[in-house]
Amino acid sequence: MGEQHYDVVGIGNAIVDVISQEPESFIADNDLVKGAMTLIDTERAERLYAKMAPAIETSGGSAANTMAGVASFGGKVSYIGKVRDDQLGTVFGHDIRAVGVDFDMTSATDGPPTGRCLVVVTPDAARTLNTFLGISSLLHPNDVDLGLVASAKVLYCEGYIWDIDITKQAIRKAVEACGAAGNKVSFTLSDSFCVERHHSEWLELVDGPIDILFGNDDEIFALYETKDLDTAVAAVQGRCEIACITLGAEGSLVVTPQEVIEIPAEPVDNVVDTTGAGDLYASGFLYGYTHGLDLAACGHLASLAAAEVISHLGARSQVSLHDLAVSKGLLAP
Amino acid sequence: MGEQHYDVVGIGNAIVDVISQEPESFIADNDLVKGAMTLIDTERAERLYAKMAPAIETSGGSAANTMAGVASFGGKVSYIGKVRDDQLGTVFGHDIRAVGVDFDMTSATDGPPTGRCLVVVTPDAARTLNTFLGISSLLHPNDVDLGLVASAKVLYCEGYIWDIDITKQAIRKAVEACGAAGNKVSFTLSDSFCVERHHSEWLELVDGPIDILFGNDDEIFALYETKDLDTAVAAVQGRCEIACITLGAEGSLVVTPQEVIEIPAEPVDNVVDTTGAGDLYASGFLYGYTHGLDLAACGHLASLAAAEVISHLGARSQVSLHDLAVSKGLLAP
Repeated sequence: MGEQHYDVVGIGNAIVDVISQEPESFIADNDLVKGAMTLIDTERAERLYAKMAPAIETSGGSAANTMAGVASFGGKVSYIGKVRDDQLGTVFGHDIRAVGVDFDMTSATDGPPTGRCLVVVTPDAARTLNTFLGISSLLHPNDVDLGLVASAKVLYCEGYIWDIDITKQAIRKAVEACGAAGNKVSFTLSDSFCVERHHSEWLELVDGPIDILFGNDDEIFALYETKDLDTAVAAVQGRCEIACITLGAEGSLVVTPQEVIEIPAEPVDNVVDTTGAGDLYASGFLYGYTHGLDLAACGHLASLAAAEVISHLGARSQVSLHDLAVSKGLLAP
Repeated sequence: MGEQHYDVVGIGNAIVDVISQEPESFIADNDLVKGAMTLIDTERAERLYAKMAPAIETSGGSAANTMAGVASFGGKVSYIGKVRDDQLGTVFGHDIRAVGVDFDMTSATDGPPTGRCLVVVTPDAARTLNTFLGISSLLHPNDVDLGLVASAKVLYCEGYIWDIDITKQAIRKAVEACGAAGNKVSFTLSDSFCVERHHSEWLELVDGPIDILFGNDDEIFALYETKDLDTAVAAVQGRCEIACITLGAEGSLVVTPQEVIEIPAEPVDNVVDTTGAGDLYASGFLYGYTHGLDLAACGHLASLAAAEVISHLGARSQVSLHDLAVSKGLLAP
């Protein structure tokens, strides 16, 4: 990696989360797909919201959460995603800039409203995502600043954005620009149902331009059509430079063509809301990777960031991840 | 009290809180009045927001918080306040209805946006309020449903709303309707600077239509121009049926013409954010009062609700206050 201006540029759906805690019965009563991300339209969003308990609003969006995390570690980061010039768009823009992420997109002055995700958190700390994409689904290839993409060591793309054809084209364009500049392409599989929807294309992506792949066990299983971890690890090994497979409380595996590194999970006293666990894992890993740390050290930063975010409601860290890592001896003061 | 339809009807500024945690230096650096509520205009709101850390949004508004608390105890409650048909107005309406408060106001289709309060929480858990009133400042006397006011055992008014002439008239109209119906008028002093701004009018209110008065020590001191608690208690005693004086960690005093009842504070392991402490105190007291509990029992419910709300960010309870009170033996299952 050369002397790029940014450590990471992220691209994804710009979303504000609307989070409520609900009893387990809420899932079945409202026909939700527990643990998954389901796209919903305006009417469904209004009906579901009306059923939800009092909520809190926090900025979200998978890649945006990751970029906020890299910035919280002290990395230099930019983000590409689309919001409207409405109140939730203002909230999204404020929160991502306030943590130090460059976000230079102009808010759209017409079209659908800023996207939001109705996040239902059950007593087991599982999160069920119901996403109204709004204007985030209109991220056009022309919205991708190729100079910006070329100026970062790593491009980070969320799989969620593959669900819409125009945004998929935007990612493809960014991936090409990243490769042409000799930079690294990283990608998160996002959701096992999302993997199933885009299965053959994503197999090609992993074999092709993706250098660093992130996914949890269910997502890797869906990609390689197995239910066995060893089989999945063997299937992904060598397909890309690095594959990070997260395993919840069991920690994670960092798989390279040469080795499989086991990373323990950071202990958490009280898991409140697992929203953002994978996003923040990626943030720690990418911060370490772009700062020349060895892969085990990258994994430990990843575990630390994931542990912080699942200890409270919301998918953004509530403390400085840099300070937290310093306090744990994982980064120099 | 007869067989009214509602236990309490509240009237106040309908506000969404935008909460960030900041270092102590943020107060001086931005010329904030620590611990107070300061009204700010659009330009000041934008400048301050741009300086704030990533925030969370939750519904707020003093009287609205109190009504949400009474509903969480299981009381029958309605709320009068004004929002726009914008995203924050939708959030406000959802959250107050979701906890069981009737909120039948039509969202305004033009005018300024829904009000918001930039809440700065410092490491000592103190909150500094910077309020952009937006459309809440346009609550017109005609917005007050006199039949609704007459249908509640108690009317609850926040002092904050006195800052705007038109909303003051709305409160005056509600207070008159409440008195004419033979119901009780309760009122919170809200903020010591607010007391200073409306000093002589509020002395008359306490001597006149107010039956139940809520305020903290600073507010009662401002009202009776003293710095001595005994002097303040003696000054307010007999001026109204009940005066509740909150004293932070020292608990509270319930002052009637006949006696002064000392209520201990409910212990809190970790005070995170004192926003809403007074609002939720009033909710517990009013729930008990409208359900025929003795004054000491009302005070214990008040302390319990205040303790819950200061243990987390945001000014609405995060658990069922009814269930919490049952678990503490303060209410029957």
